[in-house]
Amino acid sequence: MTSPTLKFRSIIPYMRGEGGFAFIARGRELASKGHHVVNLSIGQPDVPTPDNVIESAVHWLRDKKYTAYTETPGIPELRQAVADYLNERYGSDVDWREVVVTPGTKGAIFLSLATYLDPGDEIIVPEPSYPAYPEGAKILNAKARFVPLRFEGSDKGFKLDMEAIEEAITPKTKMIVVNNPHNPSGAVFTPREIDELVDIAREHKIMILADEIYDNYVYDGSFKSLISYPDWREFLVYTNGFSKTFSMTGWRLGYIVVRREVAEILSKLAVNIWGCPTSFAQKAAVTALKDPDTWKWVEKISKRYAEMRTLLYNELQGIEGVEAWKSRGAFYLFPRISSLLNKVNMNVDEFVNYIIDNYYLIILPGTAFPDTAGKDYVRFSFATSREAILEGAKRFREAVEDLLSKQS
Amino acid sequence: MTSPTLKFRSIIPYMRGEGGFAFIARGRELASKGHHVVNLSIGQPDVPTPDNVIESAVHWLRDKKYTAYTETPGIPELRQAVADYLNERYGSDVDWREVVVTPGTKGAIFLSLATYLDPGDEIIVPEPSYPAYPEGAKILNAKARFVPLRFEGSDKGFKLDMEAIEEAITPKTKMIVVNNPHNPSGAVFTPREIDELVDIAREHKIMILADEIYDNYVYDGSFKSLISYPDWREFLVYTNGFSKTFSMTGWRLGYIVVRREVAEILSKLAVNIWGCPTSFAQKAAVTALKDPDTWKWVEKISKRYAEMRTLLYNELQGIEGVEAWKSRGAFYLFPRISSLLNKVNMNVDEFVNYIIDNYYLIILPGTAFPDTAGKDYVRFSFATSREAILEGAKRFREAVEDLLSKQS
Repeated sequence: MTSPTLKFRSIIPYMRGEGGFAFIARGRELASKGHHVVNLSIGQPDVPTPDNVIESAVHWLRDKKYTAYTETPGIPELRQAVADYLNERYGSDVDWREVVVTPGTKGAIFLSLATYLDPGDEIIVPEPSYPAYPEGAKILNAKARFVPLRFEGSDKGFKLDMEAIEEAITPKTKMIVVNNPHNPSGAVFTPREIDELVDIAREHKIMILADEIYDNYVYDGSFKSLISYPDWREFLVYTNGFSKTFSMTGWRLGYIVVRREVAEILSKLAVNIWGCPTSFAQKAAVTALKDPDTWKWVEKISKRYAEMRTLLYNELQGIEGVEAWKSRGAFYLFPRISSLLNKVNMNVDEFVNYIIDNYYLIILPGTAFPDTAGKDYVRFSFATSREAILEGAKRFREAVEDLLSKQS
Repeated sequence: MTSPTLKFRSIIPYMRGEGGFAFIARGRELASKGHHVVNLSIGQPDVPTPDNVIESAVHWLRDKKYTAYTETPGIPELRQAVADYLNERYGSDVDWREVVVTPGTKGAIFLSLATYLDPGDEIIVPEPSYPAYPEGAKILNAKARFVPLRFEGSDKGFKLDMEAIEEAITPKTKMIVVNNPHNPSGAVFTPREIDELVDIAREHKIMILADEIYDNYVYDGSFKSLISYPDWREFLVYTNGFSKTFSMTGWRLGYIVVRREVAEILSKLAVNIWGCPTSFAQKAAVTALKDPDTWKWVEKISKRYAEMRTLLYNELQGIEGVEAWKSRGAFYLFPRISSLLNKVNMNVDEFVNYIIDNYYLIILPGTAFPDTAGKDYVRFSFATSREAILEGAKRFREAVEDLLSKQS
């Protein structure tokens, strides 16, 4: 008879975890065997947290007043700093009591889902998607309905498909998830697209769960934050965090902005899921938001990634079967390679594994971003050095040429 | 029509949050008005994290290699350190891959529940209980069946009621939760009680979810850890953490120990709930476990709390209507005051509010520890100074005398 410790709940066989990790682990294994691995799979800035933020944490650790539990939704000072930041940046009217600090933006997303989703409820998720939205819904016995982005070619890139989103709404739909700027496509949806989405939410009385974690990495065109709508409290659960903006991924600090009644509910759940965010890290996060030095650092990094984006885009030109759009934000290019995959008779997982095993170049298959729309794409990160991009693109080109020559 | 942001899922009206917080907040409010508040509600050591742990965090922050994401189940070095510690302390055979590091022990508990509980499933919870077990189950649409501890009077204290536990088992029962040493009662269940509980789990093929967070605060008699059974992998999900042992409550680091297959499942869920624990805090936690200086600190603190326990116990003697058992572990005395409440014609919440408002003494009503068994009790913490205990006990005695005199 099976041990009770092996009798998992019914959803467990359907949990995907984070699909990209297996490929990253494979690359790490090859590196440990002495191979010169080039990693273009990175989902975070390639530099550590800025010095002023680190020194702020050091200061507050040694002060010793912040080694104990904090309030579940975060220290009031940080909640106020987040409200000030959003209000200044996006002309919003967020009150500090509408901010709930969480362990990373993943924590923010899960907590948001846990507040609204009953078993059987649905969320609409544009795909390819960051896995945390559909997987988080699964943990709550709810489910994602995926709606593919429209790829309009290497000039125009990825668009939200409003008709398909509207068609996917059912009586069970609680929210539409919008990651903007978008991982993995690099799309920044236009203000008009965001307006249309808000209209859909208003009309159908469903929520929008916004994840704007990449909002400091916008390279082209304009970005409209969902927190900037005057009636945001009626339809919005807003999430963002410190990880990408300040290279604080290891600090685990994100936040949710919601109308005040909801913030109180979130705290009632969070006190039983993780208690509170890391105490002294919250003090350092206040420094991150308030110190002008941090913002100079952010500007510098963002400018560098804009250059790296152009570099990578240029390097991918003229590779047979690769349709790269230049992207507008985040750290990623997400070229379509369906004709290449056809020619070499591989699926994208086989293709990426081939490249990792033979060229020691780590990129991610689009299948790491559920549901199925990613099967024609690969994700390159440009949050790295000029050398890594040049070498990575070179290896990619060689791999493609090698594979194509074997077919002919 | 109600805004969609106010349409919460069906469980939300039944979430209690953490009942004690309202009383603690009330005390804080009185303190902010200039009243001299005495706080005997504290659930953490009254001293900051030890210096060597703080300096380890400072070192690894400035090193800058640990400001980014770590592996979801924690850095291998910390998982190994936890395994070494448990194996040495409890003669167990834990492999490092059986350890999953989480944001606090609350994270460990929620993740454990999320791995096993389908909607409608049940857990058996001895009451009074730390709220995170039943509330965590609720978030997953599962539920707690409460079984009261038996209070055998001021000489013998609190015991697990094995018959009642066995009777509470249904086909839906997945696990029995055991917090040992026990919050709020201060019980340390005897090795014989733990043996009997393990027999029940083996016989009925259900799990035990162990929370041994207070295992470095045992003052009398012997403590048997559930991780010490040779067949633990068959029935046990073990949780513990750094918060209470090393006064690291703000660092948010706990852990789960489970057989390896389960550890992999836990990671698949955790990657979508919080990503990973705080990175550099994990390096400091290695120091906490490995540096002999930390253990000298723990011994000193534990010895001091043993003295404070005796002091508080002695101070509560002879107060009319108060039956205090001396407790054997954790930071708490949990006297029964049912006859007192009867005489003064108050329920325990009213009684505690009266004491807070009129004597500026914060203690917690037993009702903060679900389900209903706590209604005859109050919780005092002795994780504080001699002065606070003497002053708190004096105020409590005066409050009781005052209330009784009003009745006569």
